[in-house]
Amino acid sequence: MAVRTKKLINHPQDIQREMLAGFAAAYPDVIRLTEDGLIVRRVEKEVGKVGLVIGNGTGHEPAMIGLIGPGWLDVNVPGEIFAAPGPDRIVRGIQVADRGAGVLLLVSHHEGDRINAEIAMDLCAAQGIAPVEMVLLYDDISSAPKGSEADRRGTSGLFFVWKMLGAYAEMGASLSECRRMAEKIRDQTRTLAVALTPGSSPINREVMFELPDDEMEIGMGVHGEMGQGRLPFTSADATVAVMLPQILADLPFRSGDEVLVMLNDSGSMTQMELFIAYRHIALLLSGAGIQVYKCWVGRYATTQEMAGMAISLCKVDEQLKSLWDAPAIGANVRWVQP
Amino acid sequence: MAVRTKKLINHPQDIQREMLAGFAAAYPDVIRLTEDGLIVRRVEKEVGKVGLVIGNGTGHEPAMIGLIGPGWLDVNVPGEIFAAPGPDRIVRGIQVADRGAGVLLLVSHHEGDRINAEIAMDLCAAQGIAPVEMVLLYDDISSAPKGSEADRRGTSGLFFVWKMLGAYAEMGASLSECRRMAEKIRDQTRTLAVALTPGSSPINREVMFELPDDEMEIGMGVHGEMGQGRLPFTSADATVAVMLPQILADLPFRSGDEVLVMLNDSGSMTQMELFIAYRHIALLLSGAGIQVYKCWVGRYATTQEMAGMAISLCKVDEQLKSLWDAPAIGANVRWVQP
Repeated sequence: MAVRTKKLINHPQDIQREMLAGFAAAYPDVIRLTEDGLIVRRVEKEVGKVGLVIGNGTGHEPAMIGLIGPGWLDVNVPGEIFAAPGPDRIVRGIQVADRGAGVLLLVSHHEGDRINAEIAMDLCAAQGIAPVEMVLLYDDISSAPKGSEADRRGTSGLFFVWKMLGAYAEMGASLSECRRMAEKIRDQTRTLAVALTPGSSPINREVMFELPDDEMEIGMGVHGEMGQGRLPFTSADATVAVMLPQILADLPFRSGDEVLVMLNDSGSMTQMELFIAYRHIALLLSGAGIQVYKCWVGRYATTQEMAGMAISLCKVDEQLKSLWDAPAIGANVRWVQP
Repeated sequence: MAVRTKKLINHPQDIQREMLAGFAAAYPDVIRLTEDGLIVRRVEKEVGKVGLVIGNGTGHEPAMIGLIGPGWLDVNVPGEIFAAPGPDRIVRGIQVADRGAGVLLLVSHHEGDRINAEIAMDLCAAQGIAPVEMVLLYDDISSAPKGSEADRRGTSGLFFVWKMLGAYAEMGASLSECRRMAEKIRDQTRTLAVALTPGSSPINREVMFELPDDEMEIGMGVHGEMGQGRLPFTSADATVAVMLPQILADLPFRSGDEVLVMLNDSGSMTQMELFIAYRHIALLLSGAGIQVYKCWVGRYATTQEMAGMAISLCKVDEQLKSLWDAPAIGANVRWVQP
């Protein structure tokens, strides 16, 4: 097994602060960094727009720091590496995002994130910071069985929610409309990942998990959480043939459905590998009578330099397609249709 | 030393063909793949626009396959992994790109690419395929000393040329204007790279070079070519402090200059590391009185999963700034200003 433990940093305790400082220096036209370390959309949104807030551990870049800007979200409350932000900071993020039409807190389902978000919601209620609603987001089919969807983890398929909800709020949707839309997109999204080689912690330079050279792990989570088990390492096409049918069966996606596809690189997969895999994904979807509306192929949410990929599908209708196609100008996640 | 040699492919001999097929399947609205394996801009450019053609080895994705589309280039002639395309295919690419206003062939300076491009130019002259001009592009200051710029290698700083020239041709510049603009941008661009951990060949799964855990190589080329030498592996700030002054001294960039900055990930550097490094780059440039107009921080040109980064600077004036800001919709390299 082969892992890179050289990381180009200064002191481990400064990683998050220095990364955010560099990020803010790089994109002053899109975001600003507050004194208490919140990433806030630079171009002030209009009074009356619902504020969209996320708060997550860092170490997954470009997620989630790149998701703030016009057509995206309004405030990100970044935690330390792989650690949820504290409730007080989430409350502060909600206050900054509030422009009079309420705030929606989008929580990627991990235990620490959920607990801190719920405490923040209680604090908002106690302090009369209102109206605020919260949606728990999840998409990883390997982390809990069908029927227990709400126990599943959040992973890269949440990009579908973040992208389309950003567009929806920008168009003037109300808080309750935004909440329902977030739930709708979440409920139509499914993800399954595979890991080939682990990443390493930037804090202690230790490998995040062990994986033999002749094996791969199906269902690996974004922090290296174990999935549904290991299989012999095999070809790109054979790997896709194992993963995709599980995704299709879970929703289920059916012949005649139209979908968005995300093929996410977990950190050090080459685009070469991603496009070889995408070729087979497109072939199998076509064979199943499922039409791809658009796709994202690239590095969006990472587990440091882990080599692996996640396949996400989201079933779309005409409304979701128009939300998908709306421009979105994040600092380092830009999206514009030709 | 730690290297990933697991690659998610099918058969090594099919890598390039299957990657291009997947790429074409992913972005049918932006590009099309011809039967002879050329990547061609989907939205037909107007008659009278200069055609911009590149031809390079693959294995560096998203460069150069992602650079075809509105505001970018017109035709890419992809070679096999790390291998220049043959002269006959380059000629074919030139013919496809010709819309009556001539074609500019942009060649990243590597021996095989240069030789094949020159043969292709001779074939065009012999066959009366005209008018065609060629510009040799280079930016890597470690590959030949100052005063011998034309002997230098092409690397990720060429994105400045590709991006701004794409905009310039789109605006209706003539063939000779395009050639002079390519030379101008090239001559105002400088790059220096550092490598921490090698990538591996997808063909034979062998490590591309050896680099001890406590060393880094300054000036590594995009195929793992040796640079100016090895230094002890050190902190992000100390690494930037070694690299940036060499870049500034080479043009030289001076107090009062305005620059574009690219901080390119060679394959498996995390954005975390890139932004920590960018923080110090921005600090040192500010201290030198050099103003950053805009920056790109991310993965643009890779050497498979090599861990490393390249710092590129391009001195700009008002005209170049407007070319930089023009929209450019590549398949997997999209660029739009907020």
